[in-house]
Amino acid sequence: MPLDPTEHPDWEIALEAESRMKTCYQLGEELGLTKEELLPYGHYIAKVDYLKVMERLRDAPDGKFIEVTGITPTPLGEGKSTTTIGLLQGLGRRKKRVTACIRQPSGGPTMNIKGSAAGGGLSQVIPLAEFSLGLTGDINAVMNAHNLAMVALTARLQHERNYDDERLAKVGLRRLNIDPTRVEMGWVIDFCAQALRNIIIGIGGRMDGYMMQSRFQIASSSEVMAILAVARSLEDLRQRIGQIIVAYDKKDRPITCEDLEVAGAMTAWLRSAINPNLIQTIEGQPCFVHAGPFANIAIGQSSVIGDQICLKLADYHITESGFGADIGFEKFWNVKCRYLGKVPHVSVITATIRGLKHHGVTAGAPPCPPGRPIPKEYFEENLAWLEAGAANLLHHINIVKKSGVHPVVAINVFPTDTPAEIRLLRRIAEQSGARVAVSNHWRYGGEGALELADAVLDACEQPVSFRYLYEDDTPLSERIEKIAREVYGADGVEYSREAEAKLKEFENNPKYRDFATMMVKTHLSLTHDPTIKGAPKGWTLPIKDILVYGGARFLCPMAGEISLMPGTGSDPAFRRIDVDVKTGRVTGLF
Amino acid sequence: MPLDPTEHPDWEIALEAESRMKTCYQLGEELGLTKEELLPYGHYIAKVDYLKVMERLRDAPDGKFIEVTGITPTPLGEGKSTTTIGLLQGLGRRKKRVTACIRQPSGGPTMNIKGSAAGGGLSQVIPLAEFSLGLTGDINAVMNAHNLAMVALTARLQHERNYDDERLAKVGLRRLNIDPTRVEMGWVIDFCAQALRNIIIGIGGRMDGYMMQSRFQIASSSEVMAILAVARSLEDLRQRIGQIIVAYDKKDRPITCEDLEVAGAMTAWLRSAINPNLIQTIEGQPCFVHAGPFANIAIGQSSVIGDQICLKLADYHITESGFGADIGFEKFWNVKCRYLGKVPHVSVITATIRGLKHHGVTAGAPPCPPGRPIPKEYFEENLAWLEAGAANLLHHINIVKKSGVHPVVAINVFPTDTPAEIRLLRRIAEQSGARVAVSNHWRYGGEGALELADAVLDACEQPVSFRYLYEDDTPLSERIEKIAREVYGADGVEYSREAEAKLKEFENNPKYRDFATMMVKTHLSLTHDPTIKGAPKGWTLPIKDILVYGGARFLCPMAGEISLMPGTGSDPAFRRIDVDVKTGRVTGLF
Repeated sequence: MPLDPTEHPDWEIALEAESRMKTCYQLGEELGLTKEELLPYGHYIAKVDYLKVMERLRDAPDGKFIEVTGITPTPLGEGKSTTTIGLLQGLGRRKKRVTACIRQPSGGPTMNIKGSAAGGGLSQVIPLAEFSLGLTGDINAVMNAHNLAMVALTARLQHERNYDDERLAKVGLRRLNIDPTRVEMGWVIDFCAQALRNIIIGIGGRMDGYMMQSRFQIASSSEVMAILAVARSLEDLRQRIGQIIVAYDKKDRPITCEDLEVAGAMTAWLRSAINPNLIQTIEGQPCFVHAGPFANIAIGQSSVIGDQICLKLADYHITESGFGADIGFEKFWNVKCRYLGKVPHVSVITATIRGLKHHGVTAGAPPCPPGRPIPKEYFEENLAWLEAGAANLLHHINIVKKSGVHPVVAINVFPTDTPAEIRLLRRIAEQSGARVAVSNHWRYGGEGALELADAVLDACEQPVSFRYLYEDDTPLSERIEKIAREVYGADGVEYSREAEAKLKEFENNPKYRDFATMMVKTHLSLTHDPTIKGAPKGWTLPIKDILVYGGARFLCPMAGEISLMPGTGSDPAFRRIDVDVKTGRVTGLF
Repeated sequence: MPLDPTEHPDWEIALEAESRMKTCYQLGEELGLTKEELLPYGHYIAKVDYLKVMERLRDAPDGKFIEVTGITPTPLGEGKSTTTIGLLQGLGRRKKRVTACIRQPSGGPTMNIKGSAAGGGLSQVIPLAEFSLGLTGDINAVMNAHNLAMVALTARLQHERNYDDERLAKVGLRRLNIDPTRVEMGWVIDFCAQALRNIIIGIGGRMDGYMMQSRFQIASSSEVMAILAVARSLEDLRQRIGQIIVAYDKKDRPITCEDLEVAGAMTAWLRSAINPNLIQTIEGQPCFVHAGPFANIAIGQSSVIGDQICLKLADYHITESGFGADIGFEKFWNVKCRYLGKVPHVSVITATIRGLKHHGVTAGAPPCPPGRPIPKEYFEENLAWLEAGAANLLHHINIVKKSGVHPVVAINVFPTDTPAEIRLLRRIAEQSGARVAVSNHWRYGGEGALELADAVLDACEQPVSFRYLYEDDTPLSERIEKIAREVYGADGVEYSREAEAKLKEFENNPKYRDFATMMVKTHLSLTHDPTIKGAPKGWTLPIKDILVYGGARFLCPMAGEISLMPGTGSDPAFRRIDVDVKTGRVTGLF
């Protein structure tokens, strides 16, 4: 019997459930995978050899495709991962052949304030310590591949400064003339290390590198991670890695990883990371994990390869997108589904009463800034705040409706929610025409998610008339306009002079024709301003700059500043994590 | 049939042999390991659960203990790993129950000039790509654990600057008053990144860290790696991690990882790294891999836990120490054997004709500086250089003899060595009283190592009167004096004023009584000066400083500067490494 989540922390529930885990071979057998297709990592985790599986199942039919998104979240999140896992368990209880694919948590949040992303209560994935602390090493592989590019760049800058053309030619090098003021890439580390945000490197003598400004970003925000998420094959991955723009030369030409002769070696570090990871929920359903979080700068989706495999293996496959429907679902809809060439059936919009109250600013709800605990008032009944804040949910429902995908609202209930609040929210959501389910998967696991599972199953039976927000040949400016108006609810878009110039360049250069449009915007508001809550009207989206990711093939219009390196707070999670030295078990994770 | 090493590069030989690999379960079965004790990582690699194995085999008898060391090497090494693997294969051909434990290669050298440390020719470990590119993630775990301590430190510096005592107390923190000019620890990355050797971090505003000098060192030189190598149990590891000194406070008191409340979380990142890794040679013998290289600053040995397990599993166990007998063997002898509480039987001294010629400076041999190819003249017969340079080998033989362990000289032959050279070297070595074997394991694998295997088996039958160079209660100054005179061949020791002061402090403070003495000296000379070759007489060892590693419990007398961050050269290995995108195979490793 699982422990009671109202009495035990997540890690205790996980440890107890781990005593009843299936081996990875059992999990694989249930999915119809052969032993050769499973690459075990310990007894309970496996990588799945995507080359072998896709070869075998190339012509198998695809399962129904279910996405999980959410409302505009509080800084602590609204339980989207927990709902994904709960729904997976609920569909498991209904005896469906079901998989999910979630993202690997980053060591940064896990060691800091937000904690791991393993779900919570009785909707968790296990083994928890392995899941939370590096899993099979994919983020480390991304980190090593990324940093190797920076090693190649900085060593090359040093060698080109120290040696003449003749000496360079002796080892087959031609001068690249890299502009040290135009290095686009930084280094990565998988922690929240604000002290490494802005650094000066290369201090010393002629053998100590090249002195210049530099920076570290969190590993999951790396372009290499974005490439891992969108690559359709190893060949595609190798090519994209080669096209990453590390810097520009003095004549404004891009210097890529291929130019630095490091793309092959980077791919070698990623050779295993391309295989998705298979773990399980505490109720024994198979759950895949692949690629990283960070939907506000990278794509923030589980991988294309992960979904490809799961759709072949299961009748129902659930995938998770980062943050609210304005961010994660928009990218899922217009980018990931394009890459996949698949039509989704259902999008589950995770909503919490607490989270919607915090959007009730017009009714006087207090702010809930990042790095602070949720205000106490949110745990007391307040129908006025909830009713006002529900506008945010309705906005997200409308986003999903525009794609033709069926929205299902999952009210992710907390023990402090009152019956009156739950009734009110259900009524408001139902009036929008969406299916609505009250889901108590945190408290009761799959049993608590049966209403949600049934709503999803019902929606899956309906025909879908899926349409993209924009066409393949829609110019960039029109794409941005459409996303701003139809997804975010803005009245229009305003460009800085710099962004305007880049917009013209990108629209006129055929090289960028197949680049994906990857908006960069805060996840804490439908607008570009994280302090504006609810579903604001009458505002204009400012685009300050447009970044190019040559390898991922993304053009990223920047609606505001996004830090690529979060900071570690004064009360981080690492203070409470330890190891039981008698058993090797990790304690204190959440 | 394996490929011919005179016609194929190492990675082609490895790939061919990988088509005939044993699964990790077969390997484990041959060693008498249960399925539960094996934690597979893919089909061919496993971690061995040390808690379970040591519990089961606590009272099993130990096998014979064989160490592999070498002469003072050229910058490219003399094939010590190749000889270790060759001997393992040779003993395998003699049907002995044999294991080896080698060190995990660092990504730095593997991507740079030296290449991987998988052996070479027909004496290699496989799978090569996995072995060379992170294996099961132990170095990444060390890197993450180490960097997490720096995250804790730098965030704490920021918070203590920004907040008053009251605000700190709210989250249960007391002011540590860390002195930002006395931060002892740097960050780590597992590449040769000279640009990160000296950096300034924390540039920006009050939420961007604390501005100060900092540095990156290569991950394998981390104190955390040293701790992984010497820890006798998870409990011991946890305790040592807590005692790492990260900085000093303004009153000169050490700030440890325990003070930063990060030691438990660091140990959590290391929870799997403590289990040794099991791979195989191209002839199918079991080979363990555990802990990292870098014998000139850290201990540079495979782990104590690895040897503990192997000695229980095999009748003959081979372990490798870094660099020549002055460095690696000295630490094996006086530090590792103390921790293990085991008596070694044989030390194999790896010698190459090429390497000994480069010690023949008194006969006019040209220099062979780091970062350059071996001079062409070394591949032509030159008996005079060899005879002069053989003094270096005789010196290393004498070091081993002082321990009471039986020296066996392995002449690791190269295709360019001439019969006259081999005859001469054998005669000189035999005259010293050592057993000598000409070993052609690079060319012929285990068959080529039978003479070496037989010499080792013979030596193992002889009684050993093992003695440490110094006693447990020998004061630090006497230990240094003994090592300088009896191991390095110096006339004495000369201390800087700083070292002298520290020496007194450490000798008088009972806290340091059980700290190991871990000399720091170049591996490229018996002296402190890397340009001095042969077996020099009439010199004095200068000790400039003595470092304290509070977690590893090392006192490190510094005989010269050792860079903890090597530089990437102008023709690094990563240029030639790639992935076959159809099969996922890595090409170009060496």
